Amino acid sequence: MIEQPTFATSPFFLGLSNTDRNAPFVIAGIPLDIGVTNRAGARSGPAAIRTASRMLAGNDHPHHWVSVDAMPIADIGDFAIALGDIPRSLALIEQQAAPLNHLLALGGEHGITLALLRALSKRLRSPLGLVHFDAHADTWDENFGQAYSHGSVFFHAINEGLVDPRRMIQIGIRSPLPRATYDWTVGKGVTILSAQDVHEIGIAATAERIHAVVGAQEPTYLSFDIDCLDPGCAPGTGTPEIGGLASFQAQALIRRLGGIDFVGMDLVEVAPAYDVSEITALAGATMVWEYLALRQANASG
Amino acid sequence: MIEQPTFATSPFFLGLSNTDRNAPFVIAGIPLDIGVTNRAGARSGPAAIRTASRMLAGNDHPHHWVSVDAMPIADIGDFAIALGDIPRSLALIEQQAAPLNHLLALGGEHGITLALLRALSKRLRSPLGLVHFDAHADTWDENFGQAYSHGSVFFHAINEGLVDPRRMIQIGIRSPLPRATYDWTVGKGVTILSAQDVHEIGIAATAERIHAVVGAQEPTYLSFDIDCLDPGCAPGTGTPEIGGLASFQAQALIRRLGGIDFVGMDLVEVAPAYDVSEITALAGATMVWEYLALRQANASG
Amino acid sequence: MIEQPTFATSPFFLGLSNTDRNAPFVIAGIPLDIGVTNRAGARSGPAAIRTASRMLAGNDHPHHWVSVDAMPIADIGDFAIALGDIPRSLALIEQQAAPLNHLLALGGEHGITLALLRALSKRLRSPLGLVHFDAHADTWDENFGQAYSHGSVFFHAINEGLVDPRRMIQIGIRSPLPRATYDWTVGKGVTILSAQDVHEIGIAATAERIHAVVGAQEPTYLSFDIDCLDPGCAPGTGTPEIGGLASFQAQALIRRLGGIDFVGMDLVEVAPAYDVSEITALAGATMVWEYLALRQANASG
Amino acid sequence: MIEQPTFATSPFFLGLSNTDRNAPFVIAGIPLDIGVTNRAGARSGPAAIRTASRMLAGNDHPHHWVSVDAMPIADIGDFAIALGDIPRSLALIEQQAAPLNHLLALGGEHGITLALLRALSKRLRSPLGLVHFDAHADTWDENFGQAYSHGSVFFHAINEGLVDPRRMIQIGIRSPLPRATYDWTVGKGVTILSAQDVHEIGIAATAERIHAVVGAQEPTYLSFDIDCLDPGCAPGTGTPEIGGLASFQAQALIRRLGGIDFVGMDLVEVAPAYDVSEITALAGATMVWEYLALRQANASG
Amino acid sequence: MIEQPTFATSPFFLGLSNTDRNAPFVIAGIPLDIGVTNRAGARSGPAAIRTASRMLAGNDHPHHWVSVDAMPIADIGDFAIALGDIPRSLALIEQQAAPLNHLLALGGEHGITLALLRALSKRLRSPLGLVHFDAHADTWDENFGQAYSHGSVFFHAINEGLVDPRRMIQIGIRSPLPRATYDWTVGKGVTILSAQDVHEIGIAATAERIHAVVGAQEPTYLSFDIDCLDPGCAPGTGTPEIGGLASFQAQALIRRLGGIDFVGMDLVEVAPAYDVSEITALAGATMVWEYLALRQANASG
Amino acid sequence: MIEQPTFATSPFFLGLSNTDRNAPFVIAGIPLDIGVTNRAGARSGPAAIRTASRMLAGNDHPHHWVSVDAMPIADIGDFAIALGDIPRSLALIEQQAAPLNHLLALGGEHGITLALLRALSKRLRSPLGLVHFDAHADTWDENFGQAYSHGSVFFHAINEGLVDPRRMIQIGIRSPLPRATYDWTVGKGVTILSAQDVHEIGIAATAERIHAVVGAQEPTYLSFDIDCLDPGCAPGTGTPEIGGLASFQAQALIRRLGGIDFVGMDLVEVAPAYDVSEITALAGATMVWEYLALRQANASG
Repeated sequence: MIEQPTFATSPFFLGLSNTDRNAPFVIAGIPLDIGVTNRAGARSGPAAIRTASRMLAGNDHPHHWVSVDAMPIADIGDFAIALGDIPRSLALIEQQAAPLNHLLALGGEHGITLALLRALSKRLRSPLGLVHFDAHADTWDENFGQAYSHGSVFFHAINEGLVDPRRMIQIGIRSPLPRATYDWTVGKGVTILSAQDVHEIGIAATAERIHAVVGAQEPTYLSFDIDCLDPGCAPGTGTPEIGGLASFQAQALIRRLGGIDFVGMDLVEVAPAYDVSEITALAGATMVWEYLALRQANASG
Repeated sequence: MIEQPTFATSPFFLGLSNTDRNAPFVIAGIPLDIGVTNRAGARSGPAAIRTASRMLAGNDHPHHWVSVDAMPIADIGDFAIALGDIPRSLALIEQQAAPLNHLLALGGEHGITLALLRALSKRLRSPLGLVHFDAHADTWDENFGQAYSHGSVFFHAINEGLVDPRRMIQIGIRSPLPRATYDWTVGKGVTILSAQDVHEIGIAATAERIHAVVGAQEPTYLSFDIDCLDPGCAPGTGTPEIGGLASFQAQALIRRLGGIDFVGMDLVEVAPAYDVSEITALAGATMVWEYLALRQANASG
Repeated sequence: MIEQPTFATSPFFLGLSNTDRNAPFVIAGIPLDIGVTNRAGARSGPAAIRTASRMLAGNDHPHHWVSVDAMPIADIGDFAIALGDIPRSLALIEQQAAPLNHLLALGGEHGITLALLRALSKRLRSPLGLVHFDAHADTWDENFGQAYSHGSVFFHAINEGLVDPRRMIQIGIRSPLPRATYDWTVGKGVTILSAQDVHEIGIAATAERIHAVVGAQEPTYLSFDIDCLDPGCAPGTGTPEIGGLASFQAQALIRRLGGIDFVGMDLVEVAPAYDVSEITALAGATMVWEYLALRQANASG
Repeated sequence: MIEQPTFATSPFFLGLSNTDRNAPFVIAGIPLDIGVTNRAGARSGPAAIRTASRMLAGNDHPHHWVSVDAMPIADIGDFAIALGDIPRSLALIEQQAAPLNHLLALGGEHGITLALLRALSKRLRSPLGLVHFDAHADTWDENFGQAYSHGSVFFHAINEGLVDPRRMIQIGIRSPLPRATYDWTVGKGVTILSAQDVHEIGIAATAERIHAVVGAQEPTYLSFDIDCLDPGCAPGTGTPEIGGLASFQAQALIRRLGGIDFVGMDLVEVAPAYDVSEITALAGATMVWEYLALRQANASG
Repeated sequence: MIEQPTFATSPFFLGLSNTDRNAPFVIAGIPLDIGVTNRAGARSGPAAIRTASRMLAGNDHPHHWVSVDAMPIADIGDFAIALGDIPRSLALIEQQAAPLNHLLALGGEHGITLALLRALSKRLRSPLGLVHFDAHADTWDENFGQAYSHGSVFFHAINEGLVDPRRMIQIGIRSPLPRATYDWTVGKGVTILSAQDVHEIGIAATAERIHAVVGAQEPTYLSFDIDCLDPGCAPGTGTPEIGGLASFQAQALIRRLGGIDFVGMDLVEVAPAYDVSEITALAGATMVWEYLALRQANASG
Repeated sequence: MIEQPTFATSPFFLGLSNTDRNAPFVIAGIPLDIGVTNRAGARSGPAAIRTASRMLAGNDHPHHWVSVDAMPIADIGDFAIALGDIPRSLALIEQQAAPLNHLLALGGEHGITLALLRALSKRLRSPLGLVHFDAHADTWDENFGQAYSHGSVFFHAINEGLVDPRRMIQIGIRSPLPRATYDWTVGKGVTILSAQDVHEIGIAATAERIHAVVGAQEPTYLSFDIDCLDPGCAPGTGTPEIGGLASFQAQALIRRLGGIDFVGMDLVEVAPAYDVSEITALAGATMVWEYLALRQANASG
């Protein structure tokens, strides 16, 4: 029960007051954005997502009929990063993520996912499955000379054995892309569903493909780049691409991912300086909330 | 025939110069917004909707092929409200609405609908049917201690016998919601179609459900909360929820509501400070114009 | 291969450095906007589209798998126009367009298309087919006393014999429109698919209708008014109408227009002062890029 | 006495309901903007200024202690203009201005002033004195080939004998300017006070210079281009120049112009698409209100 | 010492982690805004001021050379208010303020000051001196029928004996104002310095007047309405008036108020929906920080 | 002579078409921004400054009466930087700056100045004088662990012997600052004029101080951080501080710097995502233009 109107709720995720790093579910912001190849500003994403999330607090989820507020979630604030230094920041992020139980990371740019996968992979001692919403495959071998930009995350994650590419599916892909990069990705075994594919085959078939690829038995990670959504729904991001998913599509997909053994998630690339009236931040907050509700529904289901 | 370009048209609804309170159709702004639970500013909605409406003037409706400009409509300006006082404002609104023939109210927050339904219900001496577009059920029993916020309109309307819940349908619902509130609403007999429902079953099936619920014989009211639309289409509102209707869906639905005996409508929750380039205000103006065209088509059809 | 990050790319279309007016494909801005009937500012469209286009450079098209950067395209800057003078501007535009090989014009308002069609029609000595994306039919006989506003382009184009109305199809139409104007247009033989039509019949059927109308044998022109898109996707325009196409729909349609003998295109009515975070400019840039990729795919296919 | 809160006041100048064209003071919008050399959109200025002016209604002027609301002022709406046609628009404006008693024109671009001066000069049968606030001298002989752009207004006004250059003073001038244009202007007898001059010599000395130049005996016109203000105070304009007047300086200057025989005024170049939170429109509205208060104080003083 | 970059600092005032209600200095948000007579949204002020304040943390004040971070300050979050109910909210605010040691309140609208003065006055058992920065005198006897709007705060404060009008000075006043209201205020003994006065007499003379009016012996309150600043510096507010103070003027004045026995302060009327790039929120945060530094300098001086 | 209206001018500095790296004066963008401690986005500064600069082309400077367009200036585009890597970027910048004759750099963040001073100092073989406009001293020994952030530029420049601190003056300083950092800076011999100092002593005295500090004999560099201006004039920057210079003050100061032997300049920290209607970019462009006019006036004087 929320006693304050939305506008007076404390600016933590869902207005949470729990800050215990040992909580079963942990929200943390990771305000790194210096590996972004176009518009800057994802560093301000965590604060914006938290602020927007307050609208979702204090009621039940209208599909799963669970209360996310009732879950054992802590918001531990933002990770320390090394200002202006990608390698040191990735090391710091990995180190801070390692001891947490089940992390939901609020980016920041997509580059942070590499550090998070390294931490998880070390702990689980096996490659992860991956459900990856994005406009971009993020499997470039480098971008403009930078090996660890936000466009190379999954190139490294696959090469480092952090994810199992045969258990990896990308949804919403539509950016210009070198044919060689595409071929490398598919050649590794990754399944790619473009945004046009989703528009054509629909929600149910897309969800089936996700289940078919990642399975229910082994641990899987959810990485949600907000630019998988159409710029009309999510203008506040650094590398928008038109023709993306409507927010209802992404929401409906997450709702259908019950039974997958998710071990963590991130929501990345919200750049509030390019947002309008917080709609991108709200979309980001809602996707995290959908993930939590899915977990709660699975647990109680 | 409009003799001035759009940008020079007088800022009344459709540039109307008729201000006769006895006109068969009456547009009025109701700039109340102090019962809003999140972002403020719906008080500026009427002016913004009027300004945006000028784009729709001077031509025929491209579906019904009627001229809304030719209808006997007056724009009588804004209702007096009691600054900072909900109960007195509701009384004032009811009193001003009572003598009007067929009112199309431009909100303002959704709280005004309670006063409008009281006025109509008294005149018609029977509960109304209700077609209700919204992201929120608005059947909370109270919000943060306030009994008459914008979230409790239909809780009161049902309890006061102003609407017949068995002839009431809600379209686009998707916000977090206490299970008990949902159960109360459905238990009263209200039909709820979530936004995901509409996306799944489509326009035609949704329109059929509306007709089935409200019927053609008895008087029905249309209450259109702009937040039923997706924030991408309508960012300028106080309590946005992602995953909403595209504007074409709402438009298509209204076009299919011929034959229903509508006795009034409102368009609420446009908050221009959060709008971008007037697209929310234009969406609001267009829904009112669609309603008018539907009436005109019914009359001439 | 692009050596600079997107944000450091030169602000020409796709960062092109070729400025040769004799290039096989020529990009030119045409910053006329004084015939606009509502919100001004399309004069700033060419610069915004070029800036946004940089995001599309340096990679392959993810559907046709061609490289648009590799095409022989020049960006020759903006056409000279006559400040504040429509007739002189139209004459100047026609004169500058005449010697160019294959022009892709960045508007500016839709009024420029009349001059472009005059130039092409003179060279080809026969009326053109036309694929016309728009919210408006643009076949008014005049607007507010101005014969050559952006609302009368195709009234003149048909009357002057520049296009063959039986080989002309309009997609996305939905604005208020005098019945007489509609009847005149259809009476001339033009095919009109409203936005609601496209939403109902879908991409594949719409693409079929386009092919059926314009055919593969004779030269055809593509005129893309950005307001065919929904204001949620494209707020930055002068005469927005709700209920429009999602950007994925327009993109999917252009991808299916292979085999048509296109001889030129324009992308008009981007008004950056009303845009948010460049999403309208990016939509415009992407449509031009889709057209180029289609040409390249046709050539290599 | 205003009975409605500001946000519910009718969007006429100061919420006026008088529309009598024979009123002693007449407000009219003149939404011409096609002679603007840079950012478009002054056509939307009149509506924005009217909306903003509502904040000034219903109370006394805190310096002159007069009530502007009590003056015999009508707001007659916008003048008809010829869409996209400068010469015809100037003729229409002159014709509509001619019969009005004392016109306060809301632009629109500065080009309208030429037509207004023609109308006044014809009636008064003698050249006018001129107090001209602006960042630009507006005495170019042409701009980019257009003789009647907003940059040539006073070149023509002087050449046509509408104003007496020895009774003309320009305040706030600071834009880049051809030396020849400056020399021509000064050579004609015009007094120019740059913005830096005003910052250096202060309000009192500037006001003295104005009185010294225009005198008290003969009719004088006030032309206020909003870009005389600094872009920090007035971003919403087409050709901003940094280093301008603070709004308090302009306000203080107008308050000291008592005793001058003003016969009309205009407030031009408010371009709302570039405004932020209506501060430019409010600055424009306030300058008109200051002028009215000055007149009222003179009359009662 | 701040260990996180500004953008990663926790969104409490100056990033404070102390939440102890018994701290010697207490920051609290009071998100009431329903008594605002024009643009809504001051409810979102506290969150915006806190976010902006992070830029001021972790260093010394460059004039007083004290560290505000080192002071015993708690940020206790937002006061509970009664949604949509002014009288109940005022009672709740008074009740929550009563036990706090030295409150710095972040509004919210100016109406909250009445409740805060009631609490302080009861505790101190004598009327307070008042330094009041504002564009408006706020001594209307009512506004549009509402006795407790933001425009009547000091009418009540004087009538209820909460402040001693002879020890009350208003700085920056410039709005339209009924002569009778002005006369009542001055008649009660209040000193009014208009914004034009401050511009004319300068900082030093204004500071002297403040000291002369409030003295050093008796307790004094600082009420800072952000609209005392010019809209160019502070667009994000509900009732802007042009011609206001530059932020450097207000800052310089506060720095010269050493020796006054301040017992509390508030910073009101920041309405973030009308702000641009947080400059209004930053101005608000900085004024609170200036006040704190002044206190610290006084204590250590 | 400019043949195109401003809005159609090519988006190079002043619309220049000269791209010769050997030109006597060279404009280059340096889009580095990853060492920024707060709001990101100065990478987009060069493009925005160029676009805004077009307003200044084609006329004479109204104070010096020289034509900047006539000067031998090239705009060579943006420097290559190493994406996401500060040390490599600084090395690249130094290397690219080294061979240029007289560089005017468009930032990007202030961190670039270190590389530029290194290049100049090597060539001139002696420390430079420095005129430094800024809100921040930028002499922190590190920021949040990063030695080469934008806050440490002059700590390194002094320590590396690139500038002579006794010939270094900082104007506009006002941010919170550790006392130790201030003392270190002053202890090295740097002259600091705070923004409050400038407001108090005025333009003439400030200019005298600058001349007194840097002298006329030895080479001097101008580094202009746009945040020296007040956020009201320049909201589009990463670390705004209220109470800054009005743009007219900075402009007047530069105009009085004749006779100083300037060997280069930079204009840094324009962050367009936080700008409003390009006013910050225009302020930046104008300062560069003032510098060029000063050089031209010196040369011809």
